[in-house]
Amino acid sequence: MSDPHTVSVPGRIMAAEMAEQPAVLRRILEEGAPKIREIAAGIAARSPRFVLLTARGTSDNAALYAKYLIEILLGKPAGLTSMSTTTAYGAKPDLTDVLAITVSQSGGSPDLVASTKAAREAGAITLAVTNNPGSPLAEVSEFHIDVLAGPEKALPATKTYTAELLALYLLVEGLRGGDGSAAEELPDLAAGVLARQAEVKALAERYRFAQRLVITSRGYGYPTAREAALKLMETTYIPATPFSGADLLHGPLAMVDNVSPVIAVVPDGKGGEALQPVLDRLRGRGADLVVIGQRAQVDAASAGFALPAGVPEEVQPILEILPLQQLAYEVTIARGQDPDAPRALAKVTETR
Amino acid sequence: MSDPHTVSVPGRIMAAEMAEQPAVLRRILEEGAPKIREIAAGIAARSPRFVLLTARGTSDNAALYAKYLIEILLGKPAGLTSMSTTTAYGAKPDLTDVLAITVSQSGGSPDLVASTKAAREAGAITLAVTNNPGSPLAEVSEFHIDVLAGPEKALPATKTYTAELLALYLLVEGLRGGDGSAAEELPDLAAGVLARQAEVKALAERYRFAQRLVITSRGYGYPTAREAALKLMETTYIPATPFSGADLLHGPLAMVDNVSPVIAVVPDGKGGEALQPVLDRLRGRGADLVVIGQRAQVDAASAGFALPAGVPEEVQPILEILPLQQLAYEVTIARGQDPDAPRALAKVTETR
Repeated sequence: MSDPHTVSVPGRIMAAEMAEQPAVLRRILEEGAPKIREIAAGIAARSPRFVLLTARGTSDNAALYAKYLIEILLGKPAGLTSMSTTTAYGAKPDLTDVLAITVSQSGGSPDLVASTKAAREAGAITLAVTNNPGSPLAEVSEFHIDVLAGPEKALPATKTYTAELLALYLLVEGLRGGDGSAAEELPDLAAGVLARQAEVKALAERYRFAQRLVITSRGYGYPTAREAALKLMETTYIPATPFSGADLLHGPLAMVDNVSPVIAVVPDGKGGEALQPVLDRLRGRGADLVVIGQRAQVDAASAGFALPAGVPEEVQPILEILPLQQLAYEVTIARGQDPDAPRALAKVTETR
Repeated sequence: MSDPHTVSVPGRIMAAEMAEQPAVLRRILEEGAPKIREIAAGIAARSPRFVLLTARGTSDNAALYAKYLIEILLGKPAGLTSMSTTTAYGAKPDLTDVLAITVSQSGGSPDLVASTKAAREAGAITLAVTNNPGSPLAEVSEFHIDVLAGPEKALPATKTYTAELLALYLLVEGLRGGDGSAAEELPDLAAGVLARQAEVKALAERYRFAQRLVITSRGYGYPTAREAALKLMETTYIPATPFSGADLLHGPLAMVDNVSPVIAVVPDGKGGEALQPVLDRLRGRGADLVVIGQRAQVDAASAGFALPAGVPEEVQPILEILPLQQLAYEVTIARGQDPDAPRALAKVTETR
């Protein structure tokens, strides 16, 4: 919530934090990277065979991005945990050879702390990725990566999401002995994308009266689709349903017609290629299709936002989400609501 | 699609297949169980350490149920795969010691066949769970379980879902040396639940003009929430968003107010206990809350459907989904649509 003693400008805090993202990305590359490499070396020396990721909300979407990196770049099987199996049902799986990564902005949710503690007792190598090195989660974990985003005050998380993505990318690069060079240009590119908010504001007009949204992608872009849906739901309250392109064809396509707008995140690479048949079907059904992707993809859609060319596919998610964060912000403003003060949203969620 | 040469009664095929479920469950227990036990023994002898599950659509929700069983009852870490990492990105993880389970009604989706083949080449023990023993998926897998549901003609899958759940429960029981006795009463209990369709029809009135739905649960009930959302979306076209109770508190709760109805699947056991704080928050916000669960839970909500008491929590999902399948059917009929012929839905989805 904004300070009641100052004049409240709707969305002031969220806007300021979105704007910090290029600086946060630069800080991670310049100050955070050596420590992340060191942690990665320590973990790699223990040769984990499997990776389990645990998180909730926005951080769960960052964890899903890490799952793609781990499977594709590192060649290790990975899974997202169902936390209640530990915290509610007391499951005690044998986690020898397992790297258990917990991702959390605050590092304060009791269920994340409990499940990480249980994983460590079950033999896992535990790593916390948080924005709070003094947090209980950092304390119970063997390793800790600080995403260096600075205090996040807006209830909808923005800068901690992109910070988590970059930290997780550098971690996986460290685990596989890569140099992380694909990320070098990201701070400048992010600044360039964020400077085009006027384009996003124009796009937002189209959703001012929307009753529902479908957001789709495949591969590396799928975590972006999920995070965009979450951001739109928690700020605008429009039900925004994310589907992997393949799942969309399995049934929910019936929901999509000319009154159900679709946003497609089209990665420049194999994920985008795998999405093409889905885009063709959507166009064939006359769907209102807004594309976040390369210029040619945007031009073949109803509208969209063109992303910079030539960025390696595995780091594109760090840029893709930026216009979608702005879209959530702009649609919320257009609907007369305050992005800084969503109804019922608490910053640290105390589920057990 | 229904046969154009006969007089078409909307939803005739889906209704007939829903009604077959008690007989299908009985067939699995009487004819299928010995073979499932034998397969489980063969797999257990190879001592897999990790389980990866691959599926899409309705079968993905059955796979998620299996993930809970594997983590809780079997004490092994498990994950749902992101199929595009193999089929689009060509990831080649080392799958030694991994049991790779692929769940598919038709056993015909090319991407499932390709990813299962890749898993087998990468060293995994492969098991296909399908309703078609002659399918390409059954052929490329080392082991195959036939869920014995008989031909499924309605586009929204119903009887293959509960058949997959029961087959997967018996598999996990076999893997851990359990006797599967928790399932014995299910055919009779399912018949009792399905006989109360008039109660569901009355509940359906409430959603006839709904613009959106939120469906929540925790633990064993969460796959039910996801499958109910999918079933409602593909038949009624209402955007129905499933959230684990814990995730709902992380932000999307902002979407829930007195015009966003909530359906809660409340397991009788630890999952239901973990859901109580979420139900309290929802009641506190004045949400329209419909509960599928025990009588006392239904009585504390706006309305609901009471499930039989005394059923072990791990097999409750096989009953919980039945009134929700009927709800999807009844809301679709009430809205003047045909549950047998959803727009744009293909029975075998050919994503690659």
